[in-house]
Amino acid sequence: MEIPRPMLVGREWVDNLARHHPARLALSVFATVIAVFTGLLLLPQATAGEQSARFVDALFTATSAVCVTGLVTVDTATYWSGFGQAVILVAIKIGGLGIMTLASLLGMAVSRRIGLTQRLLTASETKTAQLGEVGSLVRVVIITSLTLEAAIALVLIPRFLTLGESLGDAVWHGVFYAVSAFNNAGFVSTPEGLMPYVGDWWMGLPIILGVFIGSLGFPVILNLARRRTDARRWSLHTKLTLTVSSLLVVVGAVAIGSFEWRNPETFGPLDGPTKVLASIFASVMPRSGGFSTVDTGAMNEATWLLTDALMFVGGGSASTAGGIRVTTLAVLMLAILAEARGDHDLEAFGRRIPRETLRLSIAVAFIGATTVLVASLILLEITNLRLDVVLFEVISAFATVGLTTGITPTLPDSGKYVITALMFIGRTGTMTVAAALALRDRRRVIRFPEERPIIG
Amino acid sequence: MEIPRPMLVGREWVDNLARHHPARLALSVFATVIAVFTGLLLLPQATAGEQSARFVDALFTATSAVCVTGLVTVDTATYWSGFGQAVILVAIKIGGLGIMTLASLLGMAVSRRIGLTQRLLTASETKTAQLGEVGSLVRVVIITSLTLEAAIALVLIPRFLTLGESLGDAVWHGVFYAVSAFNNAGFVSTPEGLMPYVGDWWMGLPIILGVFIGSLGFPVILNLARRRTDARRWSLHTKLTLTVSSLLVVVGAVAIGSFEWRNPETFGPLDGPTKVLASIFASVMPRSGGFSTVDTGAMNEATWLLTDALMFVGGGSASTAGGIRVTTLAVLMLAILAEARGDHDLEAFGRRIPRETLRLSIAVAFIGATTVLVASLILLEITNLRLDVVLFEVISAFATVGLTTGITPTLPDSGKYVITALMFIGRTGTMTVAAALALRDRRRVIRFPEERPIIG
Ligand SMILES: [K+]
Ligand SMILES: [K+]
Repeated sequence: MEIPRPMLVGREWVDNLARHHPARLALSVFATVIAVFTGLLLLPQATAGEQSARFVDALFTATSAVCVTGLVTVDTATYWSGFGQAVILVAIKIGGLGIMTLASLLGMAVSRRIGLTQRLLTASETKTAQLGEVGSLVRVVIITSLTLEAAIALVLIPRFLTLGESLGDAVWHGVFYAVSAFNNAGFVSTPEGLMPYVGDWWMGLPIILGVFIGSLGFPVILNLARRRTDARRWSLHTKLTLTVSSLLVVVGAVAIGSFEWRNPETFGPLDGPTKVLASIFASVMPRSGGFSTVDTGAMNEATWLLTDALMFVGGGSASTAGGIRVTTLAVLMLAILAEARGDHDLEAFGRRIPRETLRLSIAVAFIGATTVLVASLILLEITNLRLDVVLFEVISAFATVGLTTGITPTLPDSGKYVITALMFIGRTGTMTVAAALALRDRRRVIRFPEERPIIG
Repeated sequence: MEIPRPMLVGREWVDNLARHHPARLALSVFATVIAVFTGLLLLPQATAGEQSARFVDALFTATSAVCVTGLVTVDTATYWSGFGQAVILVAIKIGGLGIMTLASLLGMAVSRRIGLTQRLLTASETKTAQLGEVGSLVRVVIITSLTLEAAIALVLIPRFLTLGESLGDAVWHGVFYAVSAFNNAGFVSTPEGLMPYVGDWWMGLPIILGVFIGSLGFPVILNLARRRTDARRWSLHTKLTLTVSSLLVVVGAVAIGSFEWRNPETFGPLDGPTKVLASIFASVMPRSGGFSTVDTGAMNEATWLLTDALMFVGGGSASTAGGIRVTTLAVLMLAILAEARGDHDLEAFGRRIPRETLRLSIAVAFIGATTVLVASLILLEITNLRLDVVLFEVISAFATVGLTTGITPTLPDSGKYVITALMFIGRTGTMTVAAALALRDRRRVIRFPEERPIIG
């Protein structure tokens, strides 16, 4: 097939940028995409009512969609028209694809630069090398995500049909929730969100699974798809991501379940099995799906704080989830374990983790904590809100989770811009900071069998 | 001079324990001392009223005094008798001495074990070696602290006299505040504490200086006393401690000043110079003096959060201040700097910081953050309080600061026990964890010119 010359030039330019300035590429791509979708949401036909959207709300919604956060200043199902909601869905899909592609690209750039042979794509798939590598990666990402989204949608659509929706509505809601779940977007297309379905396992399970698998990250998904049955051949990154993710889900579900068990405004009125489903749901969503089946604003302070911690950790590297990433937490915990044992090296699953990885983890965690602290101070200063709700919203935005105690729509415009900036920083910052720092590593340490989990 | 045999045996036993199980020594000494002072405060003559103190209040007060925290469940000046207050003063003095001595001992044990020649005491002072080393250290600690406390008292006593107090009262209050300040205890002997003196530079400056110098830690004070004019011969530990401490005071004062400038319940009614003094005061006290000249409970949410961060960092290693320590923060920041530059080593002031130190810093910071998180979750669960005040009290207890938004006296007994445990863990945990971990380091790395700042 012949490729037109301008497209070739464009691909070369992108490939070059990806190769030499991957962090800059990520930032400019995200800013451009957000600008385009802000423009689309400002069109008169994007809103359900007479008036066009205000700039701050259009920018906020576009950023939230492209960064797959799910925080909103206006109600998605009622404020936006069908066209507006379709724009949001496309923004989520493009944002999700962009994140997975760019993060994987950054990972490749890092791997290549520091001389590791480990690649995201096996050699056989990248024979075209150079030019073809980026295109090949994008293709694999698109095919994988579409396949998984289709699978989720195919489970959800019949459920919406059995609940009495028309075929058109059922397909729309099924597809919207499948895309929103797999991309960890947290946007809802039904007026009351998922609250009516708190005890609905048929609805809940595919969404929980979609969010969980999406939050593992593209490198893990690909690794699992290729080596499904052969756990010994999983990469260290895959093993760490799966272990910590599973651990957080179990610990989170037990703790949230016990905190909310008797809360009359949340789990209290529910029956036993529903409480279990709601606990698992509330434990998976902070990392970082952002859906809710009970009113987050009515949960108690302990649940909020625990959710803060889970959201801050976030999901897997190169995933649509946010936060400092589970592998960052894993490396920090392994460092403490090694310290307690007096071991010289950080070890996990029979592999040694390079020292540079630990420094990267510290940088990501420390910069993340500082960002949350500074943003919280700013919001506390410009509003009269209290720490509990401000910290929750700040971490939710930073980790692109989208859970909310309900304060975002009530913020002054300045506060909305702070949250917008935070979503952008949280989305692009962690991965670009990690890549930019990793790329500065000038030493080549070739001591096998060493393996580098992806950080940030 | 002939030493009686039982004393010799006792000294040998302590010396042996200090040499081989320094962490265990620290824990058992603190627990024993707290038990003794709890017993003393339970005596009928310790309270001003008819009834003896309740066990929970006696334990809380004894722990708070021995751990030089300053949080109280009952008002020190009115609830306790003169005898009770004297018991508290002695507990502070013994606690402060014990902390400085034990922490220095632990530091010596760590230095010795890992084969570094750097010692807290120069060779000429430890010629008696073995047996005499501990005694010599204790002597230097006692002389240094008494000298500095006397200097502060000699400035404060005339001030209390000029304010119209009798000589006896002036001496009592001057000595009490001097000891409380230098030991970063935060206990007050005047009914309204230091609030009446918010604009009093003669009162404020010596207390600020006493707290600041006390929070630097014994190794730094000794280093400065010996090499007063020759900054080039200061140890890396001294340089890092001074730099970070000063930075935090300046940043804290500017931020707190601007947050509270117009708050009608705190700085609002004060004149310009008083606002400046109050800002510096409020910026120094979180690390971890714990005195206040305005109502902490009336400060705004942003000030509370910033104070949380300052308290969590705390003071210098082997000091009566708490927190994760300024050198821990310094090492984490240096790691990020090195990462951003692509440097292979952590460097500061022309010295290379060993990699082990970084892992130790991570362990101390991470375990500290986890402790605060878990304690906050427990308190949020057993009370109906909100995150802002709970987090403040938890960090204040963990870092043995003693600042309060006022919730401690209102806590249920279970909550008081949680805070008591937190003060004990915060006081003994950070230094023993750091020492215990450091002592497990089995490698001997002898590459000069390397220097190890004390962590935790
Ligand atoms: K989300
Ligand atoms: K204190």
